[in-house]
Amino acid sequence: MTTLTYTNLNGVNVEQLVGTIQAIQKDPSLARFHFRADTQWLSGGHSRSRIQDFYGAGQEDTSREKPFTLEGDEPPVLLGSNAGPNAVEVVLHALASCLSVGFIYNAAAQGIRVDELEFKLEGDLDLRAFLGLSDQVRPGYEALRVSYRVKSDVPREQLEALCDYVQKTSPVLDIIRNPVPVTIDMVD
Amino acid sequence: MTTLTYTNLNGVNVEQLVGTIQAIQKDPSLARFHFRADTQWLSGGHSRSRIQDFYGAGQEDTSREKPFTLEGDEPPVLLGSNAGPNAVEVVLHALASCLSVGFIYNAAAQGIRVDELEFKLEGDLDLRAFLGLSDQVRPGYEALRVSYRVKSDVPREQLEALCDYVQKTSPVLDIIRNPVPVTIDMVD
Repeated sequence: MTTLTYTNLNGVNVEQLVGTIQAIQKDPSLARFHFRADTQWLSGGHSRSRIQDFYGAGQEDTSREKPFTLEGDEPPVLLGSNAGPNAVEVVLHALASCLSVGFIYNAAAQGIRVDELEFKLEGDLDLRAFLGLSDQVRPGYEALRVSYRVKSDVPREQLEALCDYVQKTSPVLDIIRNPVPVTIDMVD
Repeated sequence: MTTLTYTNLNGVNVEQLVGTIQAIQKDPSLARFHFRADTQWLSGGHSRSRIQDFYGAGQEDTSREKPFTLEGDEPPVLLGSNAGPNAVEVVLHALASCLSVGFIYNAAAQGIRVDELEFKLEGDLDLRAFLGLSDQVRPGYEALRVSYRVKSDVPREQLEALCDYVQKTSPVLDIIRNPVPVTIDMVD
């Protein structure tokens, strides 16, 4: 009889992680995910997104009983009312959230215990393209800087190697660093 | 004496919008913004971002009395506990929020009244790159689809022209469609 020991490292169920990897190795179609959001404009700069269902691991996911609700708005200096963070600020959160998951899951897979992990992000944006005042500057971030601080008892070199690996496999970092094809269509 | 009439269209103060554009035309340095986020890992896939201050229009913004708090997590099938939407779902919200602002502000500037505006977004992602199981697929979205529905009394052609213009000037769409340089550094 084999006794399986439940192993939780960094809050990650390592056995489930290994099981997920093995299941996808056997059936790569389980790796296909479709994520979704529905967004409604409310007034001025204010909109609200609902995020709930998605397809993945071969089926529709029903684990969320109700949708997550995310507010988007602009600050007064950009004609909004601060009902939520603005869209480019939300990109910073998405990137940090993604790097955090990648760092922690891969640390758990490698047996590295992480005690603390924090990110600071800053992005530079010139508003002239958005306002139609220049076609010499791009509308989006010209540059984005991430600094992270990690507390762990393994050598710094091991943490830096882990971070390098995370950078190669991070979905949101890839979305930001590399082109993603986007189609936009009006429907009735 | 000139009497200025306060004009509000789609919830946008059109006079402030025109004033902002004129101020930046006179002093382009006012268009430089630096947006920021601080993110803390909590446990497993769960992290929390705080978004509050930024620099823009020539000064530090102090309009937000307290930070916006955004949760990030994974669903159980991806080893999380659904404490928040995951990072690539948040990207969908960021894009819709950005397109919404662009559509509504530019509509207001053109005198187009918008009654309703909704977006549906879907992104396709193959998890194998994130899990280190393939270097043949990319970590991020392979494709992203946006459909939008707009209710307005102007002809459809005018709305489609507006949408084309919004696509050229949307910060988040640019960030997703085109490469952004990102630096990531460990600090003590």
